[in-house]
Amino acid sequence: MKRKLSIALDAMGGDHAPAAVVDGAEIARERYPNALFRLFGDEAVLKPLVARYPKLQTVAVIEHTDSVVTADDKPGQALRRGRGSSMGLAIEAVSEGRADVAVSAGNTGALMALAKFMLKTMPGIDRPALATLIPTTRGESVMLDLGANVECDDRNLVEFAVMGAAFARTVLGVPRPTVALLNVGVEELKGKDAVKAAGQTLKDSPLPFEFTGFVEGDDIAAGTVDVVVTDGFTGNVALKTAEGTARMIAGLTRNAFANSLGGKLGYFFAQRGMRALRAHLDPNNHNGAVFLGLNGLVVKSHGGASALGIASAIGVAHDLAADDLMGRIAEDLKSGGADTPSPDEVAT
Amino acid sequence: MKRKLSIALDAMGGDHAPAAVVDGAEIARERYPNALFRLFGDEAVLKPLVARYPKLQTVAVIEHTDSVVTADDKPGQALRRGRGSSMGLAIEAVSEGRADVAVSAGNTGALMALAKFMLKTMPGIDRPALATLIPTTRGESVMLDLGANVECDDRNLVEFAVMGAAFARTVLGVPRPTVALLNVGVEELKGKDAVKAAGQTLKDSPLPFEFTGFVEGDDIAAGTVDVVVTDGFTGNVALKTAEGTARMIAGLTRNAFANSLGGKLGYFFAQRGMRALRAHLDPNNHNGAVFLGLNGLVVKSHGGASALGIASAIGVAHDLAADDLMGRIAEDLKSGGADTPSPDEVAT
Repeated sequence: MKRKLSIALDAMGGDHAPAAVVDGAEIARERYPNALFRLFGDEAVLKPLVARYPKLQTVAVIEHTDSVVTADDKPGQALRRGRGSSMGLAIEAVSEGRADVAVSAGNTGALMALAKFMLKTMPGIDRPALATLIPTTRGESVMLDLGANVECDDRNLVEFAVMGAAFARTVLGVPRPTVALLNVGVEELKGKDAVKAAGQTLKDSPLPFEFTGFVEGDDIAAGTVDVVVTDGFTGNVALKTAEGTARMIAGLTRNAFANSLGGKLGYFFAQRGMRALRAHLDPNNHNGAVFLGLNGLVVKSHGGASALGIASAIGVAHDLAADDLMGRIAEDLKSGGADTPSPDEVAT
Repeated sequence: MKRKLSIALDAMGGDHAPAAVVDGAEIARERYPNALFRLFGDEAVLKPLVARYPKLQTVAVIEHTDSVVTADDKPGQALRRGRGSSMGLAIEAVSEGRADVAVSAGNTGALMALAKFMLKTMPGIDRPALATLIPTTRGESVMLDLGANVECDDRNLVEFAVMGAAFARTVLGVPRPTVALLNVGVEELKGKDAVKAAGQTLKDSPLPFEFTGFVEGDDIAAGTVDVVVTDGFTGNVALKTAEGTARMIAGLTRNAFANSLGGKLGYFFAQRGMRALRAHLDPNNHNGAVFLGLNGLVVKSHGGASALGIASAIGVAHDLAADDLMGRIAEDLKSGGADTPSPDEVAT
């Protein structure tokens, strides 16, 4: 029998919380029969929501708190006042070993700050990173960092490559993922110093993945590699640029269909294919960004996630916990290229 | 009568040169009756191409050279050997005042290196930048830098804002463009130090444009502002990410239409609207990136540009020369926010 996995849920985080979180947990319960759920939040609100699902009730416990981190709270405010919030308690459950992984659809900056402070960085890792799955022409790829660190040196990028590859093995099921550094050209002489230095280190190291060198912005959507590694500033801009471009084209396509009788007829006939395309690009179907490099697993859901989106994020959390992602990263750091000296201090 | 404008063309640069360049010049000749063309390249090849257009012959001169910068030439090689090439001679014509602007669809790195070396940076500008028009939901916006400088400080970003606004006034026809810095969040505390410092300077300065603060990646395609300012690394990645995403969606949409009878019928009915959408996203219709901040105007066309794409780039070149973009930038630097001390040395 499979080991039971305990999943801590910030039941109050996200635009559609708490209903979408409880509904998402119910969907995830069907998919993952070995999962247990700890829901953190206002018991008076959560109890009737959970009571709608008798089977969920048997595998879920509610841990009460009045306190909630809001979308407007700054990371500093979350650190000062958020440790007893639904978000903070979900992370605490992971740090105390009462949960294998935490999931929150709340404020990203607050979640990052609380997770870093409460879980601390893994030994051998200088900076944690935020990684996510993105849709590509070939399926899905992993991209990191998405904003945990706006300025990165070459050591950070090398560690991101190691952590991103471990993440890809688990979520994409690729035994030996291809990994590349995002750059402004594919030649070795091009780009920022930190990117060039990281490329040299990765080229010269024995690695548990295949380092293919540099890729450019258009390789992200092309799915040229399984893992795209970059600093948090560039990764955040690239991810949002891709989302914005997809939204622009969707809007213009809608207009193209809506503005004439031919277009309306065309939409009627093509709707099945277009629906599949929309599903592929829907963030809810690629939901679940992960903080890599902490002493504990924390998964960030999109704030606007539906119940299905929350269930996807719980699925990512489940798989990472079941596969012992942290153990894999620790293993890869020992065997891999990131053998730069590990500082004693913890990154903040 | 309008002043005659002399446009220097690197007739040998680009994937479809020299035919696309000559054909593009003929299209531009019809659009801009006051333009004169200097075509640099192999006279034996160019002469019969130009001879097909009797009217173009009357406003075009061919200046012969055997030498060509290839797509594989490194910037250093171009600097050593490229000054007598079709690209180098087109830039020389600008530096000697025999042409008002140069246009090339050749190797970007080589063009940037030769243009910087032969024209030098404008007084008061630390680093030149590469700017282009991008399609948005609202129409078109300007984005810079796209790769001239992979590492930028706050002074560079402030100068890019001034130059980008002057460019937008000319090519978008907006008297007082809105300008923002690309960042990972819109709050003043977020982002890289250089971006935050540039934001502070722009906020505190009298400006000939409207500085609106920070925008994020998804604001690029949304067309939130007329001018998006960023460093060359981020701008290059963002532009290529947007292009790659558009290509992915176009491919997936094609599949959605092609994979069923309904889809095929849908395509048949919707094709007029889809054609308009494709035209809006086609790089040939937004062609003509510009090196801003040099003592002379140089326009970079996409390497893969068709004759129509070359004609668009020539159109941008024509408008910038007719509007005296360099004079505008010099004026704005005096009146505007970029009053940081100007170093004597020229950036390389």
